[in-house]
Amino acid sequence: MNTEDLLNQIAFIKEIDKVKYIQRKTKLFHSDRNENDAEHSWHLALMAIVLAEHSDEPIDVLKVVKMVLIHDIVEIDAGDTFIYDSQKNHSNTDEERLAANRIFGLLPKKQTEELIAIWEEFEAGETNEAKFARSMDRLEPLLQNTSNNGGTWKEFGVSYDKVYEKKSVIKEGSKTLWSYAEGLINESVEKGILKKE
Amino acid sequence: MNTEDLLNQIAFIKEIDKVKYIQRKTKLFHSDRNENDAEHSWHLALMAIVLAEHSDEPIDVLKVVKMVLIHDIVEIDAGDTFIYDSQKNHSNTDEERLAANRIFGLLPKKQTEELIAIWEEFEAGETNEAKFARSMDRLEPLLQNTSNNGGTWKEFGVSYDKVYEKKSVIKEGSKTLWSYAEGLINESVEKGILKKE
Repeated sequence: MNTEDLLNQIAFIKEIDKVKYIQRKTKLFHSDRNENDAEHSWHLALMAIVLAEHSDEPIDVLKVVKMVLIHDIVEIDAGDTFIYDSQKNHSNTDEERLAANRIFGLLPKKQTEELIAIWEEFEAGETNEAKFARSMDRLEPLLQNTSNNGGTWKEFGVSYDKVYEKKSVIKEGSKTLWSYAEGLINESVEKGILKKE
Repeated sequence: MNTEDLLNQIAFIKEIDKVKYIQRKTKLFHSDRNENDAEHSWHLALMAIVLAEHSDEPIDVLKVVKMVLIHDIVEIDAGDTFIYDSQKNHSNTDEERLAANRIFGLLPKKQTEELIAIWEEFEAGETNEAKFARSMDRLEPLLQNTSNNGGTWKEFGVSYDKVYEKKSVIKEGSKTLWSYAEGLINESVEKGILKKE
């Protein structure tokens, strides 16, 4: 056993506690309490496990789970960017790359490299695992907003077109889940909780 | 695709949101804010991924991750029991079994069976995966209490003997992590944040 490696791993474990303080715009189900990034990541991991069979392509479930568990860790330094914020690009900012290097860099070198590669794979969204992980990341707030009478769509005046465009990412991971999601979006318009121009 | 299966999976996903409201006695690192079960489970999952190499026996990491992600879901119905509560048996209560049947029972039959089996395996603590998962569950609050000047040990007057006994479970999963944990416990006594009779 390499003691230095263990101490580095413990340093990482302590550092990521900060993820529990990062508030998302989205609220919990049937709630007005904001969700934090740790809760969100836990939920996505269980969604990935439970919904894996709906992936259009074969996936390595452990890799998907790793992706969703770590995908928001960079926000410790870079902060949460609201997906419908038109002023700021949502992903892959320089700030996020620096954060990934610093935070995953606390780990022993081999693990630093593995987790940065997994985070980059998630951000690029090109592999089967990244596509499915990103589906989870788009599906959870859709379920939350529909349970919250429109949630952030209403709160921030987000239109149907914008929601439809952002949620279309779900289609890349699973046609089945996209068909379900599309139904929820259309139902939301009918119920008047999502505005179609 | 079986639509009913998907709707059952979505019902489960919505139900487990309640885990985010279950407060633990333990506080976040360097904090006086209580941790909730979803945050705790997320943290254990990442600890399992990062510390897996220290398991004394070969482990299926995905299974360990599933265990820690779901291990507290039964508390939606059964509530959190403080590990040092001498009045109430910590695990495997009838209440928890009923909760497992109800909540995992929301899923399609095959998944219900899989997750109940994984939860029972964790509770029994006999397989390599369960031993390592339980090590994670004991290690996180140890790290938190030492970062919080004694944390729940001080708050609830928990003695060294009791802490040592509960934390010894870590030894079953990893001699390396136990050696580190034992060091932290002894250091806590020296610092006066854990009382040795």
